Amino acid sequence: MEGHDFYSNKNILITGGLGFLGSNLAIRLLDLGASVTLYDGLIPDLGANYFNIEPIKDGVEVVTANVGDRSIMDQHVRHQDIVFNIGMHSCHLDSMQNPVFDIETNVVPQINFLESLRHNNPEARVVYVGTRAQYGRVEDPPITETTFLNPMDVYAVSKQAVEWYHLLYSKICGLRPTSLRLGNTYGPRHQMRHAKYGVQNYLIRLALDNQEIEVFGEGSQKRELIYVDDVVECLLLLGRKEECVGEVYAIGAMERVTFLELVKEIVKACESGSYTHVPWPEDRKVIEVGDVVTDFSKLTAHTGWTPSTPLSDGLRTTVKYYRAHKKHYW
Amino acid sequence: MEGHDFYSNKNILITGGLGFLGSNLAIRLLDLGASVTLYDGLIPDLGANYFNIEPIKDGVEVVTANVGDRSIMDQHVRHQDIVFNIGMHSCHLDSMQNPVFDIETNVVPQINFLESLRHNNPEARVVYVGTRAQYGRVEDPPITETTFLNPMDVYAVSKQAVEWYHLLYSKICGLRPTSLRLGNTYGPRHQMRHAKYGVQNYLIRLALDNQEIEVFGEGSQKRELIYVDDVVECLLLLGRKEECVGEVYAIGAMERVTFLELVKEIVKACESGSYTHVPWPEDRKVIEVGDVVTDFSKLTAHTGWTPSTPLSDGLRTTVKYYRAHKKHYW
Repeated sequence: MEGHDFYSNKNILITGGLGFLGSNLAIRLLDLGASVTLYDGLIPDLGANYFNIEPIKDGVEVVTANVGDRSIMDQHVRHQDIVFNIGMHSCHLDSMQNPVFDIETNVVPQINFLESLRHNNPEARVVYVGTRAQYGRVEDPPITETTFLNPMDVYAVSKQAVEWYHLLYSKICGLRPTSLRLGNTYGPRHQMRHAKYGVQNYLIRLALDNQEIEVFGEGSQKRELIYVDDVVECLLLLGRKEECVGEVYAIGAMERVTFLELVKEIVKACESGSYTHVPWPEDRKVIEVGDVVTDFSKLTAHTGWTPSTPLSDGLRTTVKYYRAHKKHYW
Repeated sequence: MEGHDFYSNKNILITGGLGFLGSNLAIRLLDLGASVTLYDGLIPDLGANYFNIEPIKDGVEVVTANVGDRSIMDQHVRHQDIVFNIGMHSCHLDSMQNPVFDIETNVVPQINFLESLRHNNPEARVVYVGTRAQYGRVEDPPITETTFLNPMDVYAVSKQAVEWYHLLYSKICGLRPTSLRLGNTYGPRHQMRHAKYGVQNYLIRLALDNQEIEVFGEGSQKRELIYVDDVVECLLLLGRKEECVGEVYAIGAMERVTFLELVKEIVKACESGSYTHVPWPEDRKVIEVGDVVTDFSKLTAHTGWTPSTPLSDGLRTTVKYYRAHKKHYW
């Protein structure tokens, strides 16, 4: 898209830089001529994977440390033009089983990260990647930025709190934050070792392994699946548009599918696998958010962004990637 | 009020028990025949004051420890019928100057407190005292429980997060929480050493000391002042009404006054002091929430509660208390 030459020679820091979204963003930024530092906590079970940055490994700086480690973060936030703050633990179920871990892993490091910016780069542009889960179960769709917040798990609460902290730092030190409340995203470079988060990606593994996918209940809950390249495009727009400073955005997909339809599409794209209906597990049921339907007109109005990847195309590319690089993800 | 004999012989834990609200609640509970444990972190600059419990000091157990200290809290949450969770740091300005301190003092101990309940008294009734500040600046008054959340400072974000954590623990362990989003409360036993929070109380000190009270700008922002006895009555209702489990309540006052009118009432009640208009200080302006107008019909419908103390009566009693016990508060 026009205008992304803005990123040429810009200094960019990406937290969670070895993960799914961070690495895809980094690859794109390198292509645009940016100077990129990837910062990653390498938290076990999350998406950090050195293979994710294989195509750019000689062109980026990689810092492996906790986002909240001031002694290290302080050195790296200086001189950055834009920070994409993506690195947070993202398991809904874990956060309910171990809330203390969630607070210690997500909330506390994030406030230290913001303090690091305050003392080293107080007016930085920061794009924070929040989550659609901040809305929880929505009684009155579609979701917009002013939809009532009803987070259903501890992780979602932490993400909302950290979004607010980002916005407040504009008052505390002049920080120039933007928040994107991201929904289900799929594509190459997502972790494939377990289904604790990003389950839509794990389903692709199951189908590629010719396994049977479990559909909870009817599988009639509506989902919006956003292809990772579309998210990267969105992040690039948010990072360079001044009118996005201090704003929060909801984001949606091109198509809306039921969970069952998604499973069928995946089986089709993989040309293997099958599915079966099983009852809802209790622990999933209490944090299930129901239909996801988003009105992202604010995002489109402010940035021009619209999703451009049909589900079938995105799945085809994704399946091809994992077929080729299975040994690095399974 | 009828029905409060429910509290006779009940085991009650109050966090922040040596503070303003905790001590007033404890005095009432002792009168109702409850067995009361006061738990207090004695955090400097907050409201803990042994003189607050002078009338009941021989009838209550006092535990001085951090709310999040599991080794101590674990022993004391057992066998409690109801926990009133009041003890949190409550300074808006401090939280913006030192967000890390706010997280460490409010969020982290509170999640440890909830874990203590989970492992020792998982289905306890807990009444959490939140704050009207969780709403922040409200564009479309009156405030109700579904008003959009727009917290204006780090403290308010933390309070909202901790409210959500309480509600989620009903799913995590069967906890039976209720949250009260409390507005400006005044009355005997509030700290009077500084104006960092509970400024409406500090104004009484200024007037009693025959000082000049500074009114920022016109002082035309509307405020609801709730007398502490009315809040205690509300807490007692919330703690014993089963229909309040899992619910959040907004609360308001009998009268609505502008800040300037409040100052005039205080000067009148004290028969001393004066006031002057000064420009808004920058740090206050950015966290000022504007008019406070609350619709508390849900609270009234569920509990029968209505405010019963006119501002002039409440101020008269308060002034009398501080005149008599000034040396313990100044």
